[in-house]
Amino acid sequence: MPPVSPLAPASTPTLPVLAGVRLATAAAGVRYKGRTDLMVAEMAPGTTVGGVLTRSLTAGAPVELCRKHLAQGEGRVLVVNSGNSNTFTGARGQAVVDATVEAAARLFACAPEAVFVSSTGVIGEPPPGDKITGALPDLKAQLKPDAWAAAAAAIMTTDTFPKVATRSAKIDGVAVTINGICKGSGMIAPDMATMLAYVFTDAGLAAPVVQSLLRAGTDKSFNCMTVDGDTSTSDTLLMFATGKAGHKPVTDVNDPRLADFTAQLEDLLIDLAKQTARDGEGATKFVEIRVVGAEHAAAARRIALSIANSPLVKTAIAGEDANWGRIVMAVGKAGERADRDKLAITIGGVAVARNGEPVTGYDETPVVAHMKGREIDIEVDVGIGSGTATVWTCDLTHGYIDINGSYRT
Amino acid sequence: MPPVSPLAPASTPTLPVLAGVRLATAAAGVRYKGRTDLMVAEMAPGTTVGGVLTRSLTAGAPVELCRKHLAQGEGRVLVVNSGNSNTFTGARGQAVVDATVEAAARLFACAPEAVFVSSTGVIGEPPPGDKITGALPDLKAQLKPDAWAAAAAAIMTTDTFPKVATRSAKIDGVAVTINGICKGSGMIAPDMATMLAYVFTDAGLAAPVVQSLLRAGTDKSFNCMTVDGDTSTSDTLLMFATGKAGHKPVTDVNDPRLADFTAQLEDLLIDLAKQTARDGEGATKFVEIRVVGAEHAAAARRIALSIANSPLVKTAIAGEDANWGRIVMAVGKAGERADRDKLAITIGGVAVARNGEPVTGYDETPVVAHMKGREIDIEVDVGIGSGTATVWTCDLTHGYIDINGSYRT
Repeated sequence: MPPVSPLAPASTPTLPVLAGVRLATAAAGVRYKGRTDLMVAEMAPGTTVGGVLTRSLTAGAPVELCRKHLAQGEGRVLVVNSGNSNTFTGARGQAVVDATVEAAARLFACAPEAVFVSSTGVIGEPPPGDKITGALPDLKAQLKPDAWAAAAAAIMTTDTFPKVATRSAKIDGVAVTINGICKGSGMIAPDMATMLAYVFTDAGLAAPVVQSLLRAGTDKSFNCMTVDGDTSTSDTLLMFATGKAGHKPVTDVNDPRLADFTAQLEDLLIDLAKQTARDGEGATKFVEIRVVGAEHAAAARRIALSIANSPLVKTAIAGEDANWGRIVMAVGKAGERADRDKLAITIGGVAVARNGEPVTGYDETPVVAHMKGREIDIEVDVGIGSGTATVWTCDLTHGYIDINGSYRT
Repeated sequence: MPPVSPLAPASTPTLPVLAGVRLATAAAGVRYKGRTDLMVAEMAPGTTVGGVLTRSLTAGAPVELCRKHLAQGEGRVLVVNSGNSNTFTGARGQAVVDATVEAAARLFACAPEAVFVSSTGVIGEPPPGDKITGALPDLKAQLKPDAWAAAAAAIMTTDTFPKVATRSAKIDGVAVTINGICKGSGMIAPDMATMLAYVFTDAGLAAPVVQSLLRAGTDKSFNCMTVDGDTSTSDTLLMFATGKAGHKPVTDVNDPRLADFTAQLEDLLIDLAKQTARDGEGATKFVEIRVVGAEHAAAARRIALSIANSPLVKTAIAGEDANWGRIVMAVGKAGERADRDKLAITIGGVAVARNGEPVTGYDETPVVAHMKGREIDIEVDVGIGSGTATVWTCDLTHGYIDINGSYRT
């Protein structure tokens, strides 16, 4: 077991029970020994679901299943395994997904279309379907409303800590809860939802509302985060809404009653996205990159991601070197409008470059101190418009090379 | 001094004298101690020039100067310094370029527009202009027709070996020579010409012909090579044609007399591009990625570059792991048409995946042996069209992190 990331949150919240959701985990031996690798969540009848899935053109069979099942909007059972992504596994992999859906639908007495399956881990090896379906009856018998920490642990791969978050909001004066769990920590680049993430709420939301809220929230959270610029073939973010909180269901995403919920959901998604960057493979620094003054918001995000994905910027940060020349390079290659002579760069709150040249005689002492810390703040003012974006990432270290040079062995 | 890349060519060709070109180098102390860092090439009157420059929007003052001077098509003096890229250096950097051009034009009695300047090294620190202009008279006194190896060495930064290549061709039955030098080895991603490269020939070519040949050759060489996906702010490829070989000058790029020259030039550019990938920072494996069956050639190149730039693919290669699942991932994120279920992957000539799944029971022994070698061959058949591309890169190792975590210190 690798040591826990030095960037892990100081404390882990205990997720509250959420009416209409029960969870269980098992050590099914899909790949890992001596740890859980299978998680089942059961949602109450009538639970709606929305989802955002990878845009990868080589996505796995579980992703395609989720895409198909999302069309009908009900979510009753979620089955997630770690250790094997069931991607690029052809007919054999598809058969495993089909068998899992069939077994779960029979066991939980629901429509097959209400079963969702995710897999994460090695690509290109058909998973042992029997181990997954064989474990389901026992998992059903062990379902508990408070098994959130165990569920978050069971879906981990190279993650060094489980990622959980919880928020509460009011709809119609009724308190609702939002719980989220997700896993990182490599092959992480935002092309919608990165990696596996699951959000549960007892709010009553029509399926199209869940879908709209999730897509909007994703753009401000997971799509603003990158570890290595490599987009997973399994990226899946699902949200289940049980409606057990008791308020009158929301059927229109523009309903003003959603204001607080929307804000809290966005906050939770950002929390999970940041935790994922904090557990980036080999990470020793958490980096927040804010771009202002771009042509528009999408341009700002592309520039921020160009900086966040640059191996030269990331290795400089790992080396605690405020090498802002590499930030200039990354702005220049982003392909968005920029004017070298209007560019300004701030590191840790200190202006280091302005109007296309270094700030003469700036005091490097606080910048050097900032680079030695765990949290690095970079702000770039492109100077030509009003588009802004914030992106989170981590540094690129020897740890990343160690982990990924020997992942399969 | 870091050790020479294990991927360096076994032998270095001696570049022949080329009528109309003389070179000299100096240790001007721009940044490095105890090595040459300044190179001057003098071309005979009437020498034509073409160039391909970075598309970075934060390009340095020397790049902008070259872009401006290329418009008139005559190339008489080339001044290149290493150690400082004179990029993002504002008015002070521009003044250094202006002073260099003025001093060189006076000294060599040519039009200022026939002087070309390149700089490579750290970004954001105005270079010591006096050291550069001060060294010019002595450099002029030392010009020699055979100083090619010294010239290639003077322009190196983190390169571990000088990169030179030579070819001969016939135009109108007259033998002409093409000599090329270039430098790598980080911040290397193809967005036209990557890094600094200079090609000289005694062929007689009108400037627009030089320009056309160079742009076409770049697309098949430097634009098919990447080290780290980071596009330099200083990328410059210039070709000078002195016309001293004596054949009747070529004024039309479609002139059939150019057939042999075009082929030899392309071969030389590919040679230099491959040498640059072989000297990628920290490289231990040279990787050739061939994509066939893509929608069109540009799609094939984008897919090949998506694979070549993937940190997960590159670290797996460093770890000698034939983790082709990551190749599937990189195809999927490339944004070009692909069909998971038609994809085929070959490593070292052995088919490992076909029709969207692993080849059952393929013999891994030759693949394992191939991964332990220095030269890695990957072929991907996208299976949907006839577009092909070949791209060269290297692996991503601890050496890259070492070099780039402490470049400025």
